Amino acid sequence: MATSAKQTTIDKVAEYRVVFADCDPMRIVYYGNYFRIFEIGRAELFRKLGHAFPGYIERGLYLAVLATECRYHSPARYDDVVSVHAGIESVGRARLKIRYELRSAEDTLLVTGSTEHAILDDDGRPQRMPQDLRDAVEAAS
Amino acid sequence: MATSAKQTTIDKVAEYRVVFADCDPMRIVYYGNYFRIFEIGRAELFRKLGHAFPGYIERGLYLAVLATECRYHSPARYDDVVSVHAGIESVGRARLKIRYELRSAEDTLLVTGSTEHAILDDDGRPQRMPQDLRDAVEAAS
Amino acid sequence: MATSAKQTTIDKVAEYRVVFADCDPMRIVYYGNYFRIFEIGRAELFRKLGHAFPGYIERGLYLAVLATECRYHSPARYDDVVSVHAGIESVGRARLKIRYELRSAEDTLLVTGSTEHAILDDDGRPQRMPQDLRDAVEAAS
Amino acid sequence: MATSAKQTTIDKVAEYRVVFADCDPMRIVYYGNYFRIFEIGRAELFRKLGHAFPGYIERGLYLAVLATECRYHSPARYDDVVSVHAGIESVGRARLKIRYELRSAEDTLLVTGSTEHAILDDDGRPQRMPQDLRDAVEAAS
Repeated sequence: MATSAKQTTIDKVAEYRVVFADCDPMRIVYYGNYFRIFEIGRAELFRKLGHAFPGYIERGLYLAVLATECRYHSPARYDDVVSVHAGIESVGRARLKIRYELRSAEDTLLVTGSTEHAILDDDGRPQRMPQDLRDAVEAAS
Repeated sequence: MATSAKQTTIDKVAEYRVVFADCDPMRIVYYGNYFRIFEIGRAELFRKLGHAFPGYIERGLYLAVLATECRYHSPARYDDVVSVHAGIESVGRARLKIRYELRSAEDTLLVTGSTEHAILDDDGRPQRMPQDLRDAVEAAS
Repeated sequence: MATSAKQTTIDKVAEYRVVFADCDPMRIVYYGNYFRIFEIGRAELFRKLGHAFPGYIERGLYLAVLATECRYHSPARYDDVVSVHAGIESVGRARLKIRYELRSAEDTLLVTGSTEHAILDDDGRPQRMPQDLRDAVEAAS
Repeated sequence: MATSAKQTTIDKVAEYRVVFADCDPMRIVYYGNYFRIFEIGRAELFRKLGHAFPGYIERGLYLAVLATECRYHSPARYDDVVSVHAGIESVGRARLKIRYELRSAEDTLLVTGSTEHAILDDDGRPQRMPQDLRDAVEAAS
C-alpha cells in the first residue's frame, strides 16, 4: 500500500450518543461496540467526500475490512455524546486505511483506532478502487 | 393461520452461556439481546426436525420475522447457562409461530416469548412453505 | 396498571440512520436490533419530558423492561434514515407502557411495538415511581 | 509488560456457531462481532486455567481491555462452526496479553487477533493481579 508520509488529517464527522445496548456490566461501552461507532465515522467520512457507500453497494462493491486495531484510553459511558473523528491514512490501488479518534464532549481522548480495507465485489473477489473514489480519498489523505 | 388447539410442545433445544457483550449497566442481559437467544433456539429446533435453515437459504428461502413478543420474568446474568426451549405453536400455508422459554440452570423461568414467521424469497416476496417443511413442523406442533 | 382510555399520543422523538452492524444476511435490519432503536426513542421521549434517564440512574433507579412486543410491517435497510416516534400509552403507580412507531423517510410504516416497564433500584427491587416523573408521564399520556 | 520470548501456546478452548445476528449484508460475520467471539475464547481460557471470571467479578475485579487488534483472513458465514483458540502471550504485574485464532471446521484460518488487559476494580482503578491468577497465567504462557 502506498502510504503517504504526511500527517493524517482527522476531522470530526459525526456525533454518537451511547445507549444502554452499547454498555456492559462495567457500566462502560463494551470494547467490541466501538467498531460500530468507527463504522458510523467511516460512512460519514465517505458521505462528506461525496462518495457515500450506498452508491457503491448498488454497483455490487463493498469496502471489506482486512484488519482493525483499537486502543482504549478512557471509557465512554451511558448517554455520553461522543465526537467521532475520521480520516484517510493511506490509499493504494485496491486498499485504503482509515484512522479514527473518539473524543468526549469535554474533548478527552477516549479511543483511537484504524481499519484497513479492500474493495470486494458481491462474490468477495478483490476489485480495483473506482478511479473517482481513489481520486477523492487521495485528495483527502 | 390454522392454529392447533392442542398445547404447544416446547422442548429443550440448546444451552446458551451469557457473555459480557449480552449484558447492560443493570448487569443483566439487555432486553433486546434475548432475541438472539430465541434465534439460536429456532435454528436448533429446525435442525432437530431435519430441516436446518442453511438448506433453505441455499434455495433462496428465508424465514422472515413478522412479529415477536417477549416477557421478562427473571433476569439472566453474566456467565449464566440458560436452557433454551422452543416449539411450534401453529402452522399455516405460508406462516408459522414459534414459542420459546428460557430457564436458568436451577430451572427458574427467565423469559417467555414467541415469533411469527413467513417464508420469503431472496427478493422479499412471500412463498408457500415447502411441503416437506410443512409436514415436519405440523408433525412437531 | 391504570390505562387511559384516550388514544396514545405518539410524537417523533428521534431519527436513526441504519448501519451495517444492524443488518443481517437478508440485507434488512435484524429483528432484534429494532429494540435498540426503541431504546433510543424511549430515552429521547423522557429527555423531552424533562426527565432524562441519567438523572434517575445517578439516584440508583432504573426503568427495567417487563415485556415487549414488536410487529414488522416493512423492512428498514442499510443507510435508511428511520423516524422514531414514541409516546406514553399508560401509567400506574410503579409501571408504565410506551408505544413506538418507526417510519421511513417516505413515511412508510416500518415497525410498531411497545415496552412495559417497572422502576427498579440498583438491587432489582421494585420502587414506586418518583412523583415528579409520574406527573410528567401522566401529563404526556 | 514482561514479554516471554517463547512462542505463545494457543489451544482450542471453545466452538462457536455463527448466527444471523452476527452477519451483515455482505453475508459474512460483521467485523466488530468477532470481538464477542474473542470474549468467549478468553472466558473459556481462564475457566480452563481454574480462574473463571465470575470469581473475580464477585470480588469487584474486572479484566478491562486496553487495546485490541484483529486481522480478517477469510470470512465466517451463517451457521459455520468456528473453532476458538486462545492463549496467554505475555504477563506483567498488572497486565496481560491474550492471542486468538479462529478456524473453520476445515481448519482454514479465519481470524487472528489479540487483546491487552489490565485488572481494574469496580471504580475503574488499576489493581495488581492477584498472585494466584498471575501464577496460573504465567504457567500457561
